[in-house]
Amino acid sequence: MGKKKISIAIPASVVSDTPHLREKTSKMGLIGRAAAIFKVNEIIIFPDDPGTSQTAETDLLATLLTYMETPQYLRKRLFKIESDLQYAGILPPLRTPHHPLNRRVKNLKIGEYREGATVSRTKEGTLIDIGVEQPAFLLNAKEPMNKRVTVKIAGIGKRIEVDLVDRDEVPEYWGYSVKIETHSFGKLLRDRSFDLTIATSKLGVPFSNVAEELAQKWERATNILIAFGAPSQGLYDVIKKEGLDLNRVADFVVNTFPVQGTETVRTEEALIASLAVLNTCLRR
Amino acid sequence: MGKKKISIAIPASVVSDTPHLREKTSKMGLIGRAAAIFKVNEIIIFPDDPGTSQTAETDLLATLLTYMETPQYLRKRLFKIESDLQYAGILPPLRTPHHPLNRRVKNLKIGEYREGATVSRTKEGTLIDIGVEQPAFLLNAKEPMNKRVTVKIAGIGKRIEVDLVDRDEVPEYWGYSVKIETHSFGKLLRDRSFDLTIATSKLGVPFSNVAEELAQKWERATNILIAFGAPSQGLYDVIKKEGLDLNRVADFVVNTFPVQGTETVRTEEALIASLAVLNTCLRR
Repeated sequence: MGKKKISIAIPASVVSDTPHLREKTSKMGLIGRAAAIFKVNEIIIFPDDPGTSQTAETDLLATLLTYMETPQYLRKRLFKIESDLQYAGILPPLRTPHHPLNRRVKNLKIGEYREGATVSRTKEGTLIDIGVEQPAFLLNAKEPMNKRVTVKIAGIGKRIEVDLVDRDEVPEYWGYSVKIETHSFGKLLRDRSFDLTIATSKLGVPFSNVAEELAQKWERATNILIAFGAPSQGLYDVIKKEGLDLNRVADFVVNTFPVQGTETVRTEEALIASLAVLNTCLRR
Repeated sequence: MGKKKISIAIPASVVSDTPHLREKTSKMGLIGRAAAIFKVNEIIIFPDDPGTSQTAETDLLATLLTYMETPQYLRKRLFKIESDLQYAGILPPLRTPHHPLNRRVKNLKIGEYREGATVSRTKEGTLIDIGVEQPAFLLNAKEPMNKRVTVKIAGIGKRIEVDLVDRDEVPEYWGYSVKIETHSFGKLLRDRSFDLTIATSKLGVPFSNVAEELAQKWERATNILIAFGAPSQGLYDVIKKEGLDLNRVADFVVNTFPVQGTETVRTEEALIASLAVLNTCLRR
């Protein structure tokens, strides 16, 4: 993939047809897993019901997805106990490279990347919890406390020394970020600098009809958006409310379920299936 | 697809790493949905731990999948209240053609197919609950009571007359059957009359490497098996216990996740993703 950035967009109402928080949590677990399996870099949550406030839904989704993406050893430090996380215990582990199982200093390696959180400041620098027995030391940095950071192990001796790095610098898949789009889906498509936008819809063109053209565009693109509709309304409906036509605002509108046996496909199902198809057919 | 029969095989331990019945139920819901979305005709549950009895697991999976596949209007008649179904309320609806929303005689059409269950016998025949206000009448049949049957509406007048039909006769996708394989996975592959067997594995050949060859075989095949491993052990491990080599007993061993970002992929995730890839790439 090189340095392609893949974003997916999901509507705020994605789990609103699921009555219980426990099953909402399960579904978000599936969405987070799908994102990680297919190396998605960013999950964008967009409002899809302009008539009402969707802040509560949006916050719930963002909290669950962010919690899931945070290495287990940092969760207690970075999240307060809150009702949205009541069933967080059932979220499946991501098992990504940035959620290492190693918790021992002696197994750390120079050059290794780790996620950490700032815990305290000394005269010389900042101490960072990187999920081993003792905090690591970052020279001179003046980061705020309880901030999540990505570091690279620079030295292991009397103290563990680390350098601050940018997440994009890590060669392996390093999780996803979560963004809340406060404007509309239409604005998201137009304002952000995507060079390839793919909307998924039951009413779209069968994937295999555009596979070749899409593969060519995919190869050249560096900033790709793949958008999904809600169980109650597809992306054509969402964007129609803004007076826009999906075929004009998205580069491709594809149907990845040409022969489906069910009346509807849920967003979490569409997400895994569509990413699997794109992954297999485009990323060779 | 024409008259291809698609079977999928899942291991008995597929949800054994999930502690709570409620999440086991969620996962099975996803597996049932995936089967229906991709028009799977049969789900086979095979034992994958020869050392222990897996009857309880197998029964749970079979009960949940069968319950889900039964039209809602027949569930009370065909299932007793049992602990395995304690959380059946969270199972998502299949929304397949054989789960019609219509419950009114006046909306029935001659020639329409419906799932039904036998409810009583008269001198002339059998009464069948087909999910409308009054039972339908089947001339002369001597079916046992509370048996699920597929019928075709033959006449709508003073009484609704139906003919008994074979499920395979219905032109639309008509749900899946559930089979328990009591022998081993190796025996399943050898003894049943599949003319194409596809095993999925992280250690398999990347799908795109064999896509063309597989597409050719798929086109000619009428009885296809797609098999999935368990979260704790893949199909190579399962079959090794029988002293067999997966590459020899399956026609293809494919990896549908060539670039996965996570250490493992769960069976329910693999199921949706693999069926989506096969569906898009093979069934044109």
